[in-house]
Amino acid sequence: MIVYDRPIAFPDVDAAGILFFGRFLFYCHEAMERLFAGLPEGYVDLIQRRRVGFPAVNVTANFRAPLRFGDVTRIALTVPRVGTTSATLHYQFTRLADGADAATIDHVVVSTALDTLTKIPHPPDVRALFEAHAA
Amino acid sequence: MIVYDRPIAFPDVDAAGILFFGRFLFYCHEAMERLFAGLPEGYVDLIQRRRVGFPAVNVTANFRAPLRFGDVTRIALTVPRVGTTSATLHYQFTRLADGADAATIDHVVVSTALDTLTKIPHPPDVRALFEAHAA
Amino acid sequence: MIVYDRPIAFPDVDAAGILFFGRFLFYCHEAMERLFAGLPEGYVDLIQRRRVGFPAVNVTANFRAPLRFGDVTRIALTVPRVGTTSATLHYQFTRLADGADAATIDHVVVSTALDTLTKIPHPPDVRALFEAHAA
Amino acid sequence: MIVYDRPIAFPDVDAAGILFFGRFLFYCHEAMERLFAGLPEGYVDLIQRRRVGFPAVNVTANFRAPLRFGDVTRIALTVPRVGTTSATLHYQFTRLADGADAATIDHVVVSTALDTLTKIPHPPDVRALFEAHAA
Repeated sequence: MIVYDRPIAFPDVDAAGILFFGRFLFYCHEAMERLFAGLPEGYVDLIQRRRVGFPAVNVTANFRAPLRFGDVTRIALTVPRVGTTSATLHYQFTRLADGADAATIDHVVVSTALDTLTKIPHPPDVRALFEAHAA
Repeated sequence: MIVYDRPIAFPDVDAAGILFFGRFLFYCHEAMERLFAGLPEGYVDLIQRRRVGFPAVNVTANFRAPLRFGDVTRIALTVPRVGTTSATLHYQFTRLADGADAATIDHVVVSTALDTLTKIPHPPDVRALFEAHAA
Repeated sequence: MIVYDRPIAFPDVDAAGILFFGRFLFYCHEAMERLFAGLPEGYVDLIQRRRVGFPAVNVTANFRAPLRFGDVTRIALTVPRVGTTSATLHYQFTRLADGADAATIDHVVVSTALDTLTKIPHPPDVRALFEAHAA
Repeated sequence: MIVYDRPIAFPDVDAAGILFFGRFLFYCHEAMERLFAGLPEGYVDLIQRRRVGFPAVNVTANFRAPLRFGDVTRIALTVPRVGTTSATLHYQFTRLADGADAATIDHVVVSTALDTLTKIPHPPDVRALFEAHAA
């Protein structure tokens, strides 16, 4: 499990004063980058030298409690399912001050050759990383 | 049905060169604002004077084809389900140049009193608007 | 002069409830794209096929009145100075409802070969476009 | 001096593959929040309980070298000028890998009562904080 504490940023709230719903997915991506930081050469090397990326094919998000500027959200990331070319990343967003369940997001990504945007089997180090974070 | 043609903006792509997956939800919100523009006094009046908003409680997104800078995406918005306090907004994203199915997104919103962030039955004009866009 | 009326977007305000200062530059870029739409083949063709871009080398911004969700800002874009490789784009932001002077921004861009990120003399059609919008 | 090392985020580059110029100001704000974290009760308390904010009245930015995904930028923040109600925040952006001078930004802010959006003299703790970071 990757645990990432993320303060809600000043410009990330909307005109209703709460974290904009699309912005949650940017925070998910930050958590995912922390997951891939566990590779020997990191996420940037994956994208830039190895030209492997992880486009989303499916996102399912449930929003249960609002987050505001001043809140810190704890994001717990696990990888409950690893297929041949795809994997499901699960993010639990908790409001740190009171432990409220703010959101859960399932994010299905596919290992992809970025130069052709075609799916590929997970590289072995990526698969091992996913499996190491099953829970 | 609301049809909204949206060019992919120059800063909205990511380091893989495609529209960032979280950014789709910002474009959904723009389409939703066009839907609410059908109210006599519009979306801004809803939010600011009537203090009614539509936080997302659930989002389900399927991404099928990438969008790049230079593409225009056609977003077709319908409201296939209208409950007492919630409604499902459905967005079909098509890549305009070739008609490719880029993404479909279901976005469940709840009519909400913004000052208390508690759900309320849809105001009658909002319900009528939703029902007028069932397909 | 390019005149571009831009509603303040719902997610673009910050936790103080006003258009975030960095966001003004995104709106400038949208106005600039409207300027380049005056080329026979447009801005996307410049960037993607001709591989010419316009990175900023200098920005000077004065902010005088806040913009909020619900406001529409009128952006008037002129090109008061055209050099060999650089040009100054000037943006006047006005709050449409009351005519308040919200901001003025000067944005110095340099014609740049994107594949090498080196400056080049303005292509003739770009120069002509700039000169046609001197005021 | 506040020193803040900021990796360029995956969605923050533009279709030219470099950090979008407006995005620099979001990174400035993050550095500024780190400055205000030096107050006993922090930035969030300033904004939310004390209702004091720091809208920008002027920004002058010089961009000298591009930043790409994979780069980390070191942001060094000082406060070279402190007036009665205003102060100048100076940000030096360096590309960490090679020490290249990426950008310098001067950001003039005004202590502001957020409920009325009127300027006020700097609160004493804010003034002391600014003065402590003169260089």
